[in-house]
Amino acid sequence: MVILLSGGIDSTVLLYQMAKGGHIDHALSFDYGARHNRMEIKYAKKHAKRLNIPHGIIKLDLSAVLKSALLGDIEVPQDIDYADPMQALTIVPFRNPIMLSVAAGYALSVGSDGVAIATHKTDQQIYPDCRPEFNEAMANVIEIVSEGKLRLYAPYAEMSKVSIVRLGMEIGVDIRNTYSCYVGEEQPCGKCGTCTERDWAINACLTEGG
Amino acid sequence: MVILLSGGIDSTVLLYQMAKGGHIDHALSFDYGARHNRMEIKYAKKHAKRLNIPHGIIKLDLSAVLKSALLGDIEVPQDIDYADPMQALTIVPFRNPIMLSVAAGYALSVGSDGVAIATHKTDQQIYPDCRPEFNEAMANVIEIVSEGKLRLYAPYAEMSKVSIVRLGMEIGVDIRNTYSCYVGEEQPCGKCGTCTERDWAINACLTEGG
Repeated sequence: MVILLSGGIDSTVLLYQMAKGGHIDHALSFDYGARHNRMEIKYAKKHAKRLNIPHGIIKLDLSAVLKSALLGDIEVPQDIDYADPMQALTIVPFRNPIMLSVAAGYALSVGSDGVAIATHKTDQQIYPDCRPEFNEAMANVIEIVSEGKLRLYAPYAEMSKVSIVRLGMEIGVDIRNTYSCYVGEEQPCGKCGTCTERDWAINACLTEGG
Repeated sequence: MVILLSGGIDSTVLLYQMAKGGHIDHALSFDYGARHNRMEIKYAKKHAKRLNIPHGIIKLDLSAVLKSALLGDIEVPQDIDYADPMQALTIVPFRNPIMLSVAAGYALSVGSDGVAIATHKTDQQIYPDCRPEFNEAMANVIEIVSEGKLRLYAPYAEMSKVSIVRLGMEIGVDIRNTYSCYVGEEQPCGKCGTCTERDWAINACLTEGG
């Protein structure tokens, strides 16, 4: 399988989980022109290297094409929850169909058997391309265009962020050694919806663990 | 609507047909790293300008990511029909899902109502992402991710190349002033599957017309 690896918690946990079973051929990261891509990819690279998994970085500068707080001059909303309607400003329209289509084209080119993505239940409130009905429609596209050679694997679709963090801790992933902040500075801002959600999920797991 | 405009016959005819009804907001061409993109786009630009339709060129260099005779060192097959199995070497894996996803993201960003593509029946033998089942699956993806704001328009899905050429001639499109050759030189090679099919369709229409 080819895995979409952002360098955030979710895809990093999936990377380790699938790597244990020998199910990953390649990891792909996308630099799509967002301010936080540079930082994310640094972490993605680190984990792929640690697991000895070939890692490709695909540069598709979509900043002039797609409108989003992650790409342009609009500020990333701060002091909000991940499910706050303002978080919708951070939608990058059609990001997952774009990345999955490129990754599927790559998977077909290198003879892999599918593409894996770590989108989860908590993503679904704001991001339409993280919902189960999207996964189903996209799985159809991938199956048809690959003539049955590839499948879409989205095992976290029904899991919450907290469950993914918990799973990551159980299998020994260095959870804090990942990057998610949408502002994209060296130090996470701690205030954007993504930081808030991440910190909340980690704390929830640490509390239940202690 | 945002139309995918390659600069070949099919998308140029669709451009003129839709423009007559005022149905096009933007035309998009992709330079995805194929040897013939430069020539194609020259023609796309000419027709969009003639119709006064805003035209964007999106550069996504996929030559290192996807395996295809159009992108790498493999030669474009010559002296074959468009439906020859050798023509499969010219498949660019997941080209239409990639282009449609980017175009849909663009359409959503600029407030358009859909994306149009001119794939047709003659394309279907070789290219899986030109088949009706692909259109249906991709239309679902577009509908879901845009939350019903966009639709996929593929009006030539059941038409043959000859019918498109005929339609183009009827509505006064300067059919010969388009470019399709996969080899990508200034003068079309006349021997690749795409040239052969194009010449055959034009001749068939000229013969029936005379």
